[in-house]
Amino acid sequence: MSHVAVRHLDTSAADFEAEFRRVQHWSAETDHAIEQRVAEILDDVRERGDAAVLDYTARFDGLQAESMAALELTRDELKAAFDAITPAQRDALQAATARVRSYHERQLQASGLSWSYRDEDGTLLGQKVTPLDRVGIYVPGGKAAYPSSVLMNAIPATVAGVGEIIMVVPTPKGEKNALVLAAAYVAGVHRAFTIGGAQAVGALAYGTATVPRVDKITGPGNAYVASAKRRVFGQVGIDMIAGPSEILVLADGSTPPDWVAMDLFSQAEHDELAQSILLCPDADYIARVQTEIDRLIDAMPRRDVIRASLEGRGALIRTRSMEEACEISNRIAPEHLEVSSAEPHRWEPLLRHAGAIFLGAYTSESLGDYCAGPNHVLPTSGTARFSSPLGVYDFQKRSSLIEVSEQGAQTLGLIAAELAYGEGLQAHAQAAEFRLNR
Amino acid sequence: MSHVAVRHLDTSAADFEAEFRRVQHWSAETDHAIEQRVAEILDDVRERGDAAVLDYTARFDGLQAESMAALELTRDELKAAFDAITPAQRDALQAATARVRSYHERQLQASGLSWSYRDEDGTLLGQKVTPLDRVGIYVPGGKAAYPSSVLMNAIPATVAGVGEIIMVVPTPKGEKNALVLAAAYVAGVHRAFTIGGAQAVGALAYGTATVPRVDKITGPGNAYVASAKRRVFGQVGIDMIAGPSEILVLADGSTPPDWVAMDLFSQAEHDELAQSILLCPDADYIARVQTEIDRLIDAMPRRDVIRASLEGRGALIRTRSMEEACEISNRIAPEHLEVSSAEPHRWEPLLRHAGAIFLGAYTSESLGDYCAGPNHVLPTSGTARFSSPLGVYDFQKRSSLIEVSEQGAQTLGLIAAELAYGEGLQAHAQAAEFRLNR
Repeated sequence: MSHVAVRHLDTSAADFEAEFRRVQHWSAETDHAIEQRVAEILDDVRERGDAAVLDYTARFDGLQAESMAALELTRDELKAAFDAITPAQRDALQAATARVRSYHERQLQASGLSWSYRDEDGTLLGQKVTPLDRVGIYVPGGKAAYPSSVLMNAIPATVAGVGEIIMVVPTPKGEKNALVLAAAYVAGVHRAFTIGGAQAVGALAYGTATVPRVDKITGPGNAYVASAKRRVFGQVGIDMIAGPSEILVLADGSTPPDWVAMDLFSQAEHDELAQSILLCPDADYIARVQTEIDRLIDAMPRRDVIRASLEGRGALIRTRSMEEACEISNRIAPEHLEVSSAEPHRWEPLLRHAGAIFLGAYTSESLGDYCAGPNHVLPTSGTARFSSPLGVYDFQKRSSLIEVSEQGAQTLGLIAAELAYGEGLQAHAQAAEFRLNR
Repeated sequence: MSHVAVRHLDTSAADFEAEFRRVQHWSAETDHAIEQRVAEILDDVRERGDAAVLDYTARFDGLQAESMAALELTRDELKAAFDAITPAQRDALQAATARVRSYHERQLQASGLSWSYRDEDGTLLGQKVTPLDRVGIYVPGGKAAYPSSVLMNAIPATVAGVGEIIMVVPTPKGEKNALVLAAAYVAGVHRAFTIGGAQAVGALAYGTATVPRVDKITGPGNAYVASAKRRVFGQVGIDMIAGPSEILVLADGSTPPDWVAMDLFSQAEHDELAQSILLCPDADYIARVQTEIDRLIDAMPRRDVIRASLEGRGALIRTRSMEEACEISNRIAPEHLEVSSAEPHRWEPLLRHAGAIFLGAYTSESLGDYCAGPNHVLPTSGTARFSSPLGVYDFQKRSSLIEVSEQGAQTLGLIAAELAYGEGLQAHAQAAEFRLNR
């Protein structure tokens, strides 16, 4: 038993707002030195292609190769990795894949199909939805190499019908993560290269003689990768720029407190900057969660990280009511939001901003992280105010369809011409007027 | 009659690929001086708020104001502008608004609603779709001030159910565009400020004492605005970064050639960098379009811009077939794609990448620009490979919903624990195991 000094806050305290702002504060300050370095690497990759990528891979990853071809992992190598892991791991990867695929297929049906209609004058209007031709998936190497992230990035792309999925994963000093390669095999990655950093982002964005240019790059990475993604945005599509991971638990006191303590740990163990927050109107329950935290911490292999995260960025917040807890949750817009309540459907309608909402005591965040079905790539750092989980829609794009009938052109032409003249765009107006039957 | 020297290409010519690359080339080079200046402006706005915005507005727009409140346009002022325009303009704005709203309501129904289902073990999975709380719409001032853009940005936001829409529009030397204000009134803009540039983007992204912080910023702007949007991305959401406008006309020779010539003009009149391309397998038809271009140019008020655009970036390309024309169109991924053919539905399935597809001779791009219904904010510069028209979905975000049943937790817990141990995340594993009934 060793005390973990998590910050305790109370919404009825006079200094709550100031304390809360301190908890919320996290600044992804732009590092100009990194920006400058990344700009140089990207320019070099655009200029020299494979040769530049090989140089940086030797320098940063300590991995020498004669050619980019030597850094490609064949489908046979991915399959060999899959065959080499334990049967239990194979089963778990396949079960997770099946569930994640099934959820994303529902997503495709619910919001990812083309549609059209004709209005009364015979004009056809609609939207055609098509998959991206080719995407790149960035998978971090080293300690944060997560096979589950390979599934979560690749599966929505396969469900969308993307023609080719290219994975890049750095393998410092040539060390490969067998589970990552196995996951790539199961998830349907088409090609894979053991490259990383800004140079891998550049290779995917511009294309090299060996690495084909992609249309979009998804997946998390370090500060160099994030800066490179931001810089190539426009040239290719990107997903969100990820910040530290967060969990917020809304508790009414009905869940066993050790479950909640472990859920807070599961976020904190990611890294020191991860944030775990409990919101609860019941002071006694908060005390019991604190007791469980203190009781459970010593047995955790990653206790140092967990402690640093909980003491540095965590908080146990007593609220006046569950309603107030929901309001504070909306201000935070957390990545993961557990509604650990006996009546989760009472509170869910009050929750406007969150990456994923986990309802009820049995829904630990970790079930969602791996295999419930929904994606675990979620908006962080309050960006759930305006962005969404990674999904099939990220691997599709839409084209408007318009077919104006001869009759429709008569009414629409007059409106368009009026507005076009108002904007001083006479060719626009005349193009509409040419279609009028006079 | 004065000859416009549009580039003529032929896909069967030996130098076609080189010529085509020259036509395609357009580089949005990053201007480091602008980047640096924008970074300073944004820092200053974050630091000093209203005072900084007032300073820059005085300096860049020549508009002195005592306070930010003095730069707010009230709903009464917007209504007064609407009342002051001509009845024909009022009717046209309202008719366009009704049609654009109707299309976007279909879009909401087709792909913007929440959904959920329960699997066989009682686990609920789904996605909750909610509108953004508050968005900012950037409307350029000066010569590119388009009331239609106000409609196209604001209407999808209102259909999505956004709580508050804030418009910013610079008014250099205080000159207001009555049609822009009238459009803001009709489209349902809630608040409007006469500020622009990087300082307006900063005010919306960070909030000031007077300008509320928004969750997303949409709308086109100059290089400063584009750079500022890129820089605040993450802090707030942004839409795409717009490049020059483009039209590509796929013609089988069945459309009157003067209609096609005027459609090419309607893109070219936007600015010198706009691009108009014709793809057609019929050399005679191309010659007739060239004749119409030469015949029509002198009567166009914006003939100098049209000529500069067509001669600098335009092309009339003879292809071997309509199929080949479709393939080239996919390589270009144009913003606007007219299928000016007697059998548009024969070619439409071959077209994978385009912002909007205009089918048949009667569907001039300009009808779509103003009032057919679909949005005219479209991906430019080949970004239709991976991005979509502005839509209701840009003003919504999604939250995953997961409610694992007690029974579901028993199977999911084993899978999650296996994968979590494989990733070295023991708290994740134990959080799942705590839910197992042992």
